[in-house]
Amino acid sequence: MDRLLKQIEFIIEADKLKNILRRNYISDGSKRENDAEHSWYFSLVAMILSEYSNNTIDIQKVIKMSIIHDIVEIYAGDTFIYDEKAKESQKERERIASEKIFGLLPEDQKIYYLELWNEFENNVTSEAKFAKSIDRIVAVLLNIKSNGRAWKEHKIDFSQVYEISSKIADGSSKLWLYIEEILTINKGRGLFYNS
Amino acid sequence: MDRLLKQIEFIIEADKLKNILRRNYISDGSKRENDAEHSWYFSLVAMILSEYSNNTIDIQKVIKMSIIHDIVEIYAGDTFIYDEKAKESQKERERIASEKIFGLLPEDQKIYYLELWNEFENNVTSEAKFAKSIDRIVAVLLNIKSNGRAWKEHKIDFSQVYEISSKIADGSSKLWLYIEEILTINKGRGLFYNS
Repeated sequence: MDRLLKQIEFIIEADKLKNILRRNYISDGSKRENDAEHSWYFSLVAMILSEYSNNTIDIQKVIKMSIIHDIVEIYAGDTFIYDEKAKESQKERERIASEKIFGLLPEDQKIYYLELWNEFENNVTSEAKFAKSIDRIVAVLLNIKSNGRAWKEHKIDFSQVYEISSKIADGSSKLWLYIEEILTINKGRGLFYNS
Repeated sequence: MDRLLKQIEFIIEADKLKNILRRNYISDGSKRENDAEHSWYFSLVAMILSEYSNNTIDIQKVIKMSIIHDIVEIYAGDTFIYDEKAKESQKERERIASEKIFGLLPEDQKIYYLELWNEFENNVTSEAKFAKSIDRIVAVLLNIKSNGRAWKEHKIDFSQVYEISSKIADGSSKLWLYIEEILTINKGRGLFYNS
C-alpha cells in the first residue's frame, strides 16, 4: 500500500504538466501548447513515423521517453530551444528537478525513469536520437501551420530555425529531408523573423 | 513520399485533439482537461501502474491504445460517461469518425490503428480491460483532487460514480480496492451531487 501511495503522489504531481506552457502555438494558432499536450503529440508522432529512424529502435522505449521527457519542467519550467541564456542553467535546473519528481516514486521506478530521462537528455542511443528528432519535428510542423507565430514573437529568423532543425538528421535523415524542404519552401513567406 | 505526406496529414489533423474538452477539470480545478492532456495522462498512469493489472499485459500495446483511444473525438466529440442519452449514439458516431481519422494514414497503418482502437472499445483483451480501468481511474483521481467540480456541475451523485468506477475491477481488482476506499472516505464531504 505504501508503494501505491507513492505512485499516486507522483501521478497527482505530474498533473501539473498541463499548466506548463511552451512558446509555440497549436496548429490553428488559437493557444499556446502546454507540455502535456506536447508530450502526447510527441508520442503519437514518434509512433506514426518510427519507420524513418536512421537506426533500428525499440519504439516502446521511444514512446516511454516521450511521455516523461518534459516532466522535469513542472519544477524547472520550459526552456525555449532558442534561448541561449536560459539554456546555460537548464542542465542543472532540470537535473535537480528530475531527482525531485522521480524521487516521489518507489525506488525501483525512480531509478528506471531517471535513467530513461537521462538517456533522452544525453542523446547518445538510437532511441534518444530518434526521440530528439521527433521533438524538433513537431515544433517545426506546428510553427509552420500556425504561420510562424511563435518564431516571429520571439524574433527567430530562418537561419536559426534551419540550424536547430538540421539536427533532425541525427535521428532521421529522411525526415530531415522533408523538413528541410518545407522550411525552404516557406522561406520568404512571412513565417520567420525578418523574412 | 506519398506515404509520408499521408502520415503528415494525419499528424496535423490529430493536433485538433488539443481543442476537444472533457467534462472534468485538471487536479487544481483551474481548467477543464482536453483530450490531448488526458491521453498523455492516461499513458503515463498506465505505465506507472501496470504492475497492478489482473492479467499479464503487453504494456506497449496498452500505451499505444491510450495514445489513440480518444482521437475519434476530433469528429465525434467527447461523450460524458454519465450521459446515457449521448451514449446511445456514441458507438455509431465514433465508428464513422474512426474510419475518417485513421483513413488518412497509409493502408497498413490505417488497418493497424483501427484494430487497436477497436480492441480498446471492445474491452475483451487483457490490454483493453486494463486500459479501460486506467481511463476510469484518472477521471476519479482528478475529480477527487478538484473537489468533485465536474461531478457536481453535472449532477452526478455518489452511487453513479461508485457504479461506473466499480468496473475498474475488470482490469485491476487491486486498484479498484484503492479507488473504492478513497470514494468511500470522501462520501459526505461535498464532492458529489446531493452529498
